[in-house]
Amino acid sequence: MTKYISSPQNSTVKRLLQLQSKSRIRAKEGGFIIEGLRELELCIKGGYEIAALYFVPALVSEEALLALFVEDTVIILTEISQEVYEKLAYRGSTEGVIAFAKAKQQNLNDLKLPKNPLILVAEAPEKPGNIGALLRTADAANVDAFIIANPKTDLYNPNIIRSSVGCVFTNQVATGSTASVIAFLKERGISIYSAILQDAQYYHEQDFTTPTALVVGTEATGLSEVWRVASKQNIIIPMSGAIDSMNVSVAAGILVFEAKRQRGF
Amino acid sequence: MTKYISSPQNSTVKRLLQLQSKSRIRAKEGGFIIEGLRELELCIKGGYEIAALYFVPALVSEEALLALFVEDTVIILTEISQEVYEKLAYRGSTEGVIAFAKAKQQNLNDLKLPKNPLILVAEAPEKPGNIGALLRTADAANVDAFIIANPKTDLYNPNIIRSSVGCVFTNQVATGSTASVIAFLKERGISIYSAILQDAQYYHEQDFTTPTALVVGTEATGLSEVWRVASKQNIIIPMSGAIDSMNVSVAAGILVFEAKRQRGF
Repeated sequence: MTKYISSPQNSTVKRLLQLQSKSRIRAKEGGFIIEGLRELELCIKGGYEIAALYFVPALVSEEALLALFVEDTVIILTEISQEVYEKLAYRGSTEGVIAFAKAKQQNLNDLKLPKNPLILVAEAPEKPGNIGALLRTADAANVDAFIIANPKTDLYNPNIIRSSVGCVFTNQVATGSTASVIAFLKERGISIYSAILQDAQYYHEQDFTTPTALVVGTEATGLSEVWRVASKQNIIIPMSGAIDSMNVSVAAGILVFEAKRQRGF
Repeated sequence: MTKYISSPQNSTVKRLLQLQSKSRIRAKEGGFIIEGLRELELCIKGGYEIAALYFVPALVSEEALLALFVEDTVIILTEISQEVYEKLAYRGSTEGVIAFAKAKQQNLNDLKLPKNPLILVAEAPEKPGNIGALLRTADAANVDAFIIANPKTDLYNPNIIRSSVGCVFTNQVATGSTASVIAFLKERGISIYSAILQDAQYYHEQDFTTPTALVVGTEATGLSEVWRVASKQNIIIPMSGAIDSMNVSVAAGILVFEAKRQRGF
């Protein structure tokens, strides 16, 4: 049975718009909005439950959508008018599909880690573009987990989903307070290498071949003080420019791929 | 002698706004707009000529501005009203200063290279955020030159200046057609390593200790075909994720810092 929404004034449309724009509403409803076939496919592959699908029949067929799911999945399909779609489509894409997916809990204790994990930790990243680039790096390096300490935003912000090109669904991700992340790493005997200037050694002179967490902070304020104490070793990337300023996702990429290089990829 | 502009309708204000928003106008006038004390300072240090300064006396003093220049520099100072400043201030900053700086030519043949240069080349980068991050990486690694082949935009776009946090002024930068960049590198015996999948070897197994150019393309279309032929060796960063997608500035950072590592920083 398929429903149909033709008016942009419809209450469901208003709710979907709020889910896109408001972190608070996403938390309350326990879900988020995705847009486009590729994102939908990655989200399903990532093990997310798609609770509702909204599509424009003239742009995408019901069959093409259902083919993305495993057989016998129950999904609520709703046809929407072009006008409604244009109001909802965040990226201005023309793929004709919007979905409501249920959020994952992203608890530290749900992480499944191998014996010798490599973990990327970012504390309090704010810019969606940086978070997206961090998620892409985490995916490319296939780190065992990407952890956000003291998150400033939920990861289901449409700008993060977009800038991560779907890597928000492919990574094993967890979030938690900085104190809980440090406790989690220490309990598991994972060495913490924090990107902190004070008492630092060069990153490329460290041994990242044993259980390792690489920790980066924000560009504005760096890492909070507790990381310095928790670190096995503070590390820096030697810089020799006029400004000594690197994008946080670039710095994370350099650290993670040095660890991968040491581990023989 | 100080002039004064109080009305946002003033023709100079309109010209400055056009210089901010239009690459064509920047090319025609041979200059660009910068905003804020830090950018102004870096721009002056970078050897740029500041042709005109516009400032709000209530926000910044004439003395503070003049202190940034070497003695006897001739500058045209114009006081502007708060209203005019708010119209011009691109970043919504409150520093009270806008300047018109003369562009540099950025010719390949003006580059001053050491005997064993390390050069970063990006072909046709488009997003200001990526170009800014590339410029920051180039500064942090202190590469001998950052070259943009087939530029899609001029580097004096306010979004690039901002996202580069001023590194657009600190790097030795040149632009040119892809053909001229390749010719330039070959004439000087600089080995070209292009980030191209085809016939590629792993980046970390190459020797970047001799004259080296590391070349990255766009995320959408990669590098143009001529680079493959021009390369000493095509290189890839081994990826093992679900999507294998990396931000171009992250990839460039990984390549450049591997070269720095091999060269002992």
